[in-house]
Amino acid sequence: MRTQLSGKVHLVGAGPGDPELLTVKAHALIRAAEVVLHDDLVSPAVLALAGPHAMVINVGKRCGTKNITQSEINRLMIASARRGLSVVRLKSGDPGIFGRLAEERDALEVAAVPYEIVPGITAGIAAAASLGASLTDRRSSSRIVVISAHRAHENESDEKTDWRGLATNNTTLVIYMPGQNFSALEKELLDAGLDADTPAAIVSRASTPDQREFHTTLAKLHEAPHLPAPSILLIGRTLEHAAKSTTQPASHPVSLTWESLLEAAEVSIAATKANENSERRLS
Amino acid sequence: MRTQLSGKVHLVGAGPGDPELLTVKAHALIRAAEVVLHDDLVSPAVLALAGPHAMVINVGKRCGTKNITQSEINRLMIASARRGLSVVRLKSGDPGIFGRLAEERDALEVAAVPYEIVPGITAGIAAAASLGASLTDRRSSSRIVVISAHRAHENESDEKTDWRGLATNNTTLVIYMPGQNFSALEKELLDAGLDADTPAAIVSRASTPDQREFHTTLAKLHEAPHLPAPSILLIGRTLEHAAKSTTQPASHPVSLTWESLLEAAEVSIAATKANENSERRLS
Repeated sequence: MRTQLSGKVHLVGAGPGDPELLTVKAHALIRAAEVVLHDDLVSPAVLALAGPHAMVINVGKRCGTKNITQSEINRLMIASARRGLSVVRLKSGDPGIFGRLAEERDALEVAAVPYEIVPGITAGIAAAASLGASLTDRRSSSRIVVISAHRAHENESDEKTDWRGLATNNTTLVIYMPGQNFSALEKELLDAGLDADTPAAIVSRASTPDQREFHTTLAKLHEAPHLPAPSILLIGRTLEHAAKSTTQPASHPVSLTWESLLEAAEVSIAATKANENSERRLS
Repeated sequence: MRTQLSGKVHLVGAGPGDPELLTVKAHALIRAAEVVLHDDLVSPAVLALAGPHAMVINVGKRCGTKNITQSEINRLMIASARRGLSVVRLKSGDPGIFGRLAEERDALEVAAVPYEIVPGITAGIAAAASLGASLTDRRSSSRIVVISAHRAHENESDEKTDWRGLATNNTTLVIYMPGQNFSALEKELLDAGLDADTPAAIVSRASTPDQREFHTTLAKLHEAPHLPAPSILLIGRTLEHAAKSTTQPASHPVSLTWESLLEAAEVSIAATKANENSERRLS
């Protein structure tokens, strides 16, 4: 990497938990960082990548530094960068999705501290992949709505989300911080016109060794068990597959031969190889 | 990686283009694959990671194998895996977001071929990160709507998206394949009640050396220039920052000292270090 490290703050997505789901860039930055400031939800396996001399500080509000304020986190980032240290501000998932990225970025800009955002695999995408689910499907789901059920949004004037138009039968809902009580949500979504048999899945601790899943339908969502946080609630037709994927798929013979396919693809392979070689010469 | 490779199909997200934004897992799988079947939009820099003896085939419909059908792509994956080859099916961004993942997964299941989905950084998330924008912001944007402007969805009975309820002033819209003619979209979003001064940004080829950006507002969206595909259109209050970030931020002194902060964080550091060391012993 040719990125400047010292005196800069990297706002880095730590992904869902599995260190193999870090980006190559995030992986290298964590290993090279002199200061790692991380949230509660960043997995121990990811934190273990930090170098032996790195200062690793949990600035999470629950298990980390008690009573630490957002303003103190900002000052810690700024002070470290001004001392010429390489700082990684590590947030679980993607920093730009329910990660308070904007507030920390604004503080860095006011302080004229250089920063860079490194995106990460957000929990909702990891949860879907782990179920073998696709968030969109040409046949059933043409859009995704990403929303947090945690009512901490200063800009939500009314307490309730207006689901009309938002929760339609061709939408996949990806709900962060869904909490444990789904009765109200179930009723709101049914009232908004979502089919009662719409598949739903709760994925707890996606991509980690502790991952747990529960499959249900919208009408039975209120019966879902309490799974450990962090969890993601997925609702939509595209989850239909995940619900039934425990059944063994049937085996069918494939009549097409490898050779005949290669013949058909021959021109393309030659073109790709030529392209690839010229790439290699350039690099 | 302890993942089984031979005879298995990995449906892998290639991310937005920069090889450093591949996941660690995707990077290792591409390097080890015997067969790489990729879409048009996967970047040459990512394809260059494939081994010298790998068969790299563009199965994209535009620049790749002419007239190749989805069914032929499925057969190619299945035939390769059945020959005991390690197959990487490489899709730009995340495979589960507008990537036809579901259809290929279904074909693999019917054929009883083992598969695994490896998520990737989707273009919309990479585009936001590259602008310094956060897709959510406690102060302005509490939800994200991910949608494709390309009308190829068999399940959309009417031609037009009903934006009421979907495009609200506390939503960030992430529009894939937005095309080049924004007049109709602008009108639809204004009719749905979105403010005329809502910031908008088009990001072309996010994360690659060719990245280009254009900042505007909803009311002027129709004046946007044609930028090379693939591009992402972002619309929402949270883009406000990105639009003005060319101005130099002011520098303010920080009164808090590094030492005083460390003192406050001391207990937490000790705890984290102990935790980290026990992690290391376990691994």
